[in-house]
Amino acid sequence: MTSRKKILLISTGGTFNKTYNPKNGELEIDKNSAALQTIASKWLCEFEILNIIGKDSLEITNHDRLELLSTIHQSSYQSIIIIHGTDTMDVTAEYLAEAELEKTIVITGAMVPYSLDATEATANLASAYGYIHTLEKNGVFIAMNGIMDNFEKVKKNRKEGKFTL
Amino acid sequence: MTSRKKILLISTGGTFNKTYNPKNGELEIDKNSAALQTIASKWLCEFEILNIIGKDSLEITNHDRLELLSTIHQSSYQSIIIIHGTDTMDVTAEYLAEAELEKTIVITGAMVPYSLDATEATANLASAYGYIHTLEKNGVFIAMNGIMDNFEKVKKNRKEGKFTL
Amino acid sequence: MTSRKKILLISTGGTFNKTYNPKNGELEIDKNSAALQTIASKWLCEFEILNIIGKDSLEITNHDRLELLSTIHQSSYQSIIIIHGTDTMDVTAEYLAEAELEKTIVITGAMVPYSLDATEATANLASAYGYIHTLEKNGVFIAMNGIMDNFEKVKKNRKEGKFTL
Amino acid sequence: MTSRKKILLISTGGTFNKTYNPKNGELEIDKNSAALQTIASKWLCEFEILNIIGKDSLEITNHDRLELLSTIHQSSYQSIIIIHGTDTMDVTAEYLAEAELEKTIVITGAMVPYSLDATEATANLASAYGYIHTLEKNGVFIAMNGIMDNFEKVKKNRKEGKFTL
Repeated sequence: MTSRKKILLISTGGTFNKTYNPKNGELEIDKNSAALQTIASKWLCEFEILNIIGKDSLEITNHDRLELLSTIHQSSYQSIIIIHGTDTMDVTAEYLAEAELEKTIVITGAMVPYSLDATEATANLASAYGYIHTLEKNGVFIAMNGIMDNFEKVKKNRKEGKFTL
Repeated sequence: MTSRKKILLISTGGTFNKTYNPKNGELEIDKNSAALQTIASKWLCEFEILNIIGKDSLEITNHDRLELLSTIHQSSYQSIIIIHGTDTMDVTAEYLAEAELEKTIVITGAMVPYSLDATEATANLASAYGYIHTLEKNGVFIAMNGIMDNFEKVKKNRKEGKFTL
Repeated sequence: MTSRKKILLISTGGTFNKTYNPKNGELEIDKNSAALQTIASKWLCEFEILNIIGKDSLEITNHDRLELLSTIHQSSYQSIIIIHGTDTMDVTAEYLAEAELEKTIVITGAMVPYSLDATEATANLASAYGYIHTLEKNGVFIAMNGIMDNFEKVKKNRKEGKFTL
Repeated sequence: MTSRKKILLISTGGTFNKTYNPKNGELEIDKNSAALQTIASKWLCEFEILNIIGKDSLEITNHDRLELLSTIHQSSYQSIIIIHGTDTMDVTAEYLAEAELEKTIVITGAMVPYSLDATEATANLASAYGYIHTLEKNGVFIAMNGIMDNFEKVKKNRKEGKFTL
């Protein structure tokens, strides 16, 4: 018996995965989520990663959400972490929750791109990873800024630029 | 009712807290664990931090372990994360386990100092933070390199330089 | 007799001084050029810094250039390094050159903000600093990506995203 | 006529090139000076690099200095930057100066390894690079912490941990 839970990471883009393009001076989504691979490599830990959508969360449509839902539904994984932009994280959480899947889903992301400053993005991801490890309930949860709870209780405070209960 | 668990971080030193001293070219333990405060600040999350011992784990004695045990015993916190050097993390874990405290204790640390490269130390700490959040069992656990389990199952593989089950 | 040349750093903004604002997800010019102060502090070296204009170089007007020219003209410093955005660095260089000041002016900047990745910005600035140290000619020069020469010879190659001769 | 001076970088090891080995917790000299290649890559600038000796400067012997001298003597380059540990930088400088080569030699290094914090090492190297670009005199010079001058005038202040005139 292995005590290591099998976890799937679905990366949908978001600030977490932004990188700086020196040619145009813009921050762009890295659709290959190299950030997740770098974290896995430095953390000496293997991740199962699936990249879909690849968007800023302000541009995520319900069509994208349906793609995400189908992907989760068809996946053999029971525990799933979603990396998602922070602006519409709550909308996606509610969308997924309505499907009442028999899965444990933790959504996380970052206010600061991993490539700009590693700490916040790494901490959000790793806290989600630790949280889902012992979480036995089905449902949709959010892990941001040290807050981990059912998605309905965790809200982005745009003025303070962080998530609160 | 708040759903946020109260967690105490006890920092005992270790590689996690090492910083480079340019005057002598040595890596030295930061006994004030500024690394933890930086993580808290960047993660937009408040930590309750207690600094004791302040040693490389190869130098930790049973007298230090008694100090750690007393500190935990006297603390009002039920959930405690210990930041500890990796070389004798297992010895300290066993020492604490023998006391059979009615507490949940997760020990973590780092192979690379936070001040040198933020990712691994941050990931270890944040995974411990997420793990303890839902962990209901009393006992002593280790969270390192994405592994989180009872201390007896997690071992440092010195050749590979990481912890494994 | 001191052999240390007195050098004035005039910071006009530019990518060099951009920092990430997590609340709106934008890279913004830091008008106080904290990047220069951080470099001075880590390099164990004192800078004389003057902050004016504080703009992305695409937004710099001839009115701004006149302010820059006046500032240089009125300054008691003979050797001046200007931190400037890369997109119109050549326009400002030509504008200043036409005034035929009896000063040595080296313009530098960065393709990647110092706050995102320290190396390129630091190297451009420090090469300008070393270059001006022994440069005896009056005129306007550019120091970027290891190229240091009269401004007329140094051009931004937008396709490659670097400066070339 | 190209106005770009041809410069050879001879890397002898030193703190500049130290990297952290997580398996033993030690800072070790990287004899391949990957730091120089990283700087070249990020600075968008090509370096001609020669790796010899590969030691902490406290361990450099006169036999090593003879190897360095021969390498310089036999090189076709007229302008040479040496990356060297700071503790015996002055000894090596004097050794090379006594040979009265018809070359321009600038020695630099770092108090903090590039791999730990990029700014100081990058600034020292790039200032040496800019300095040698216009330096017309033969001789041995030191470029550290914004100080650039004949080696006899630049001294390491061990108490302050920096070089001064």
